[in-house]
Amino acid sequence: MNTIPSVGFIGLGLMGHAMAKQLIKAGYSLCIHSRTASKAEPLIALGATYAQTPVELAKIVKNNIIIVCVTDSTALEDVMLGAQGLLSHIDPGCLVIDMGTSRFDLTQTLAKQAQVQGAHFLDAPVSGGQIGAQQGTLSIMAGGHPAQLERAQPLFNAMAKQTTHVGGNGCGQLAKTANQMIVGATLNIVAEALFLAKKNGADPAKVRAALGGGFADSKILQLHGQRMVDKAFTPGARATTQLKDLQQAADLAQNCALNLPLNQACLSQWQGMVDADLGGLDQAGILAWVALNNEQIIPK
Amino acid sequence: MNTIPSVGFIGLGLMGHAMAKQLIKAGYSLCIHSRTASKAEPLIALGATYAQTPVELAKIVKNNIIIVCVTDSTALEDVMLGAQGLLSHIDPGCLVIDMGTSRFDLTQTLAKQAQVQGAHFLDAPVSGGQIGAQQGTLSIMAGGHPAQLERAQPLFNAMAKQTTHVGGNGCGQLAKTANQMIVGATLNIVAEALFLAKKNGADPAKVRAALGGGFADSKILQLHGQRMVDKAFTPGARATTQLKDLQQAADLAQNCALNLPLNQACLSQWQGMVDADLGGLDQAGILAWVALNNEQIIPK
Repeated sequence: MNTIPSVGFIGLGLMGHAMAKQLIKAGYSLCIHSRTASKAEPLIALGATYAQTPVELAKIVKNNIIIVCVTDSTALEDVMLGAQGLLSHIDPGCLVIDMGTSRFDLTQTLAKQAQVQGAHFLDAPVSGGQIGAQQGTLSIMAGGHPAQLERAQPLFNAMAKQTTHVGGNGCGQLAKTANQMIVGATLNIVAEALFLAKKNGADPAKVRAALGGGFADSKILQLHGQRMVDKAFTPGARATTQLKDLQQAADLAQNCALNLPLNQACLSQWQGMVDADLGGLDQAGILAWVALNNEQIIPK
Repeated sequence: MNTIPSVGFIGLGLMGHAMAKQLIKAGYSLCIHSRTASKAEPLIALGATYAQTPVELAKIVKNNIIIVCVTDSTALEDVMLGAQGLLSHIDPGCLVIDMGTSRFDLTQTLAKQAQVQGAHFLDAPVSGGQIGAQQGTLSIMAGGHPAQLERAQPLFNAMAKQTTHVGGNGCGQLAKTANQMIVGATLNIVAEALFLAKKNGADPAKVRAALGGGFADSKILQLHGQRMVDKAFTPGARATTQLKDLQQAADLAQNCALNLPLNQACLSQWQGMVDADLGGLDQAGILAWVALNNEQIIPK
């Protein structure tokens, strides 16, 4: 007899699918939902049950935990808000966790809406990409009440190697915004630096090796720098996602009347990359944009 | 009886002084020179001999090795070129090593000039800062002939934990340029990201902790990010030095007609910081510039 209701999981994209799988592996009984029903099949084969709608899922999960991991803030609004939205149908005591990368203001709206229902909300976006999701080694940046974080921790432990409680609701998303700003600019400058060195006759592979261990060293230099050296631009995480996140950061800065010129310049570069039809490349493909941008300017 | 001539060392600033000291500790007999003679005194007390001019130093060192580590390319030209310059007075077989951060084109000129004398040249700039110099844990990025690098390796081992042979003459400086571009932009974006998070109510210390281990992790986030959290802006390496190096990168890009927009935007920010009289701060003080830049725009 199953006395504890299932954990809910909505959103089965590359990240969500891998994360849900970790939860099943850890022994959780999952009730899943995806806009594209076929994406649920491999997880149903592993024992998950399927809910046709967020409302049906809310009824099955009752006052347990529902994780949402959808593409962007628009998709999140669709799942969460309105008459057929999750938040109008959750039971009191239910904990809803948004693990996607979502707008700061939307996060605060959702947290308040959950509270109106007598329910709870955590923003808990992740870093570590598809590989981190598949290996259960994500980093989670959490915002919300510490008691709810404690309640979610066993689930987080199945998906992540590190969870940091950043602050109240929205603070997880602020940390993720900071993360994406740093990732976007680091990728861009590593690409420009390797390109400049190569154009002057140095071997980018040796330049990258020379920089390891010094002040320029980073996860990006190690992982994406190697992809740049190898010109291995099959995604991984797409440039379009990076652009979305940098736009979100720029919007947030504008909303609070802040001037962040480097992020703005970086946003233009990722926009240029996507406009040049390179948005489907891995984020390391920003090197291809740096090269193309220079070829366009200097006729050969 | 001392059959092997002394090793020469010219330039006793914060970096040079600490590096020369490591060589003395490793048992080398040093002949030193500095534009400011008083800077030599602590090393003379440790057994170094003093040469009044680069020419005198060249005569003492004979066909051994001379390391030069001066402030910038202008100072390097003064030491190296002209009738009283080092390169007109070195013996055949002598190896001159520039360990400062110098212009790519100047490096190539110096290497050719050394060759005319029947001598040798390595560009071997370093990363790791004053602490790395003091602890003998620098990273060296070397350009030049492999046989000369092999000859210099025992000296490098006394100053550095890692030496990478990047390529022919100039390639060490290209790697250093790449290093400084990445360091400058990473510092700037970490400052903007922490500032944005703080202005929206998150604790920068917790944001920084949350980002550790994820894709945004870097040496800069770990070391300088902590200084930003602590507002500890006593240099360390000054913002003026970072500006000089980014200007050098931008000049190199312009010389080969390359468009590197992110580096250009980053250069403007460091120029803004120095123009606002913040150039004497540690590089982590770019956070103070991000804050000031926003206060100037938004009247309180």
